[in-house]
Amino acid sequence: MPAPKVSLDEVIAILERVRAQHPLVHCLTNQVVKNFTANVLLALGAAPAMVEHADEAAEFAAMASALLVNVGTLDEPQMAAMLRAIPSANKAKKPWVLDPVAVGPLTIRTHFAHEILTQRPTLIRGNASEIIALAGQTGRGRGVDSGDTAEAALNAAKTLALQTGGAVLVTGQIDYATDGTAIVACANGHPLMTRVTGVGCAQGAVAAACCTVANSPLAAAVAAATLMGIAGDLAARVSQRPGSFAEALLDSLDQLDPSILLREAKLS
Amino acid sequence: MPAPKVSLDEVIAILERVRAQHPLVHCLTNQVVKNFTANVLLALGAAPAMVEHADEAAEFAAMASALLVNVGTLDEPQMAAMLRAIPSANKAKKPWVLDPVAVGPLTIRTHFAHEILTQRPTLIRGNASEIIALAGQTGRGRGVDSGDTAEAALNAAKTLALQTGGAVLVTGQIDYATDGTAIVACANGHPLMTRVTGVGCAQGAVAAACCTVANSPLAAAVAAATLMGIAGDLAARVSQRPGSFAEALLDSLDQLDPSILLREAKLS
Amino acid sequence: MPAPKVSLDEVIAILERVRAQHPLVHCLTNQVVKNFTANVLLALGAAPAMVEHADEAAEFAAMASALLVNVGTLDEPQMAAMLRAIPSANKAKKPWVLDPVAVGPLTIRTHFAHEILTQRPTLIRGNASEIIALAGQTGRGRGVDSGDTAEAALNAAKTLALQTGGAVLVTGQIDYATDGTAIVACANGHPLMTRVTGVGCAQGAVAAACCTVANSPLAAAVAAATLMGIAGDLAARVSQRPGSFAEALLDSLDQLDPSILLREAKLS
Repeated sequence: MPAPKVSLDEVIAILERVRAQHPLVHCLTNQVVKNFTANVLLALGAAPAMVEHADEAAEFAAMASALLVNVGTLDEPQMAAMLRAIPSANKAKKPWVLDPVAVGPLTIRTHFAHEILTQRPTLIRGNASEIIALAGQTGRGRGVDSGDTAEAALNAAKTLALQTGGAVLVTGQIDYATDGTAIVACANGHPLMTRVTGVGCAQGAVAAACCTVANSPLAAAVAAATLMGIAGDLAARVSQRPGSFAEALLDSLDQLDPSILLREAKLS
Repeated sequence: MPAPKVSLDEVIAILERVRAQHPLVHCLTNQVVKNFTANVLLALGAAPAMVEHADEAAEFAAMASALLVNVGTLDEPQMAAMLRAIPSANKAKKPWVLDPVAVGPLTIRTHFAHEILTQRPTLIRGNASEIIALAGQTGRGRGVDSGDTAEAALNAAKTLALQTGGAVLVTGQIDYATDGTAIVACANGHPLMTRVTGVGCAQGAVAAACCTVANSPLAAAVAAATLMGIAGDLAARVSQRPGSFAEALLDSLDQLDPSILLREAKLS
Repeated sequence: MPAPKVSLDEVIAILERVRAQHPLVHCLTNQVVKNFTANVLLALGAAPAMVEHADEAAEFAAMASALLVNVGTLDEPQMAAMLRAIPSANKAKKPWVLDPVAVGPLTIRTHFAHEILTQRPTLIRGNASEIIALAGQTGRGRGVDSGDTAEAALNAAKTLALQTGGAVLVTGQIDYATDGTAIVACANGHPLMTRVTGVGCAQGAVAAACCTVANSPLAAAVAAATLMGIAGDLAARVSQRPGSFAEALLDSLDQLDPSILLREAKLS
């Protein structure tokens, strides 16, 4: 078996750079997960900021280290803010991450996601149904749940990566990261992560933080999958119920270090 | 003493069906409690989704299993979304729950709640002051707190249930569920539940989940009161302080099973 | 060393009055921290309410015990609500607190904060960069982080206090409260408080609650700094990781009592 295209050493370096540089992630994200997303970034060592007014969002996207665009509770003002923030981030050469929550079954966000896709996100993170729909194919999503397996979305993911020139992270029981040619499988993570709202959305914010210090979008995608996945693995050893698991997940992100990554990572 | 009109066996069956079917609850709810509401639904075994854009809210209300309308932080766009989502849910024969937060002292939400009441919610959940005000009577509410006892609201609750053809759940030290004729008292629950924001609002979401699998709105109301109440009872045995109590409440919802319900339920 | 102008006895009396009177704090605050802010108020013994519609916000500001204006995720509707709620609170002689989150680097909120400053907040709470910018001086803020020390902001704080006739609380490793003449230093608190989103924002809500029962805005500022700081100190003895620390912070607020304050307070 060949070594994965992104090495564990690179993931470790990304974690250490996030801890040293505290990248400031501008999160234009959904209303359900803002608090948890901010706490995930802080627990990892990054810094969150949510700036919603369209004028300020444009202004701030140039100042922040990275931008997250999550369409989970899209409304007209937030679409306007995103349409201002994305070009601003691009112009300032700041990475931006697209999380196409529930794209596919819902009309407005699907059109909107296709529209902003042309502005070439550095990284796209979604479940299989969302990635398939974003690539213009037909999926089986139901709200935020995926009706498709991650494996079934690999071709769509590659297509999107080639189209944007960035990376795509397809999440599922195994997460797959691709830049259109290489595919890296990240097998960390635990089913309890689906019993806490916003774990996937927060992973998008972590991916944005990783983009600011990674050598490539693909490495950032692998790092986001691995860091969140290992934190989930550690948390599931502390608690098997969702309330205490959520707290343990934050504590575990704080606890991550090179030796834990060396012991726990499942990259291939 | 006659047996309560909704049996404990029916509540147990509702829990088991929620766990088996994972009903997807579309929550148009207030900004304070979105995250906690989603986590309560996930802990119980249901699935949450928040879709806020009016066009998408109408689209999604027909796809989801049930709709929750909570007026706690009503603004113009959310009112528009609710006015689109409710008829869509009704047309698709999906149950919807109205939580008239702080109706009474505040003008706009009071008018709005009276307006949507004509679209006949399957279930109404509120404290005594809210139920009294929604029925057009005079209460003593102060924001989200009730100045009235649940007992004082029973006539208002019956009136509303007969008017809508659904059920009403009046919450307080004892919760009362009525379909306009029968009244079931649910005596589970703990005062610490009032020290965590959103426990009542999340109960509305649980009620919506229960409506999707119950034989009657009354049974769904009794199940929502009993399931949340017992989870609160269990959590108060784990912690007597609000931060750790909130976490224990989520863990307890996950832990609920038939034997716990048989041991703990206080229905009459 | 002279005794601080606000005595520990007065802080203790404020805590006891909050617990007895449960002041209702109307929070017009940012989307990231609404849930946590509400839980902090409840844990302390106060009561939260978030009312967002401009008409209702004006109506409610006269009914509530105090108003919090936090500009963290300002948008047009929330600015409209604030512009209605502040005069309503002033007219009803209810205290209001301004938290100028990220004022300085972001244009709209900076103009807006200067505009509402003329309506004389009872208390202003911010980090050093925000206080310096609000006073019209030049700071070094980066989003919500302060690039300046609290000590560097003391002159700006005094200027603002004299201008408004209220108190200013500058937060940092040591918090400083001033009414324009006296300065009280509050040395409680722990670095982990910066690893949980919204601790500072929630302190603004606590300050609003304290204003309703304090003999002066300065005393309310000292109480807010001391109560949150000691809760942080206690929580850091329970946990050194951010997820469990956040929960312990809420539990510690609930646990505060006169004997703990006598033992822990660091006022000078």
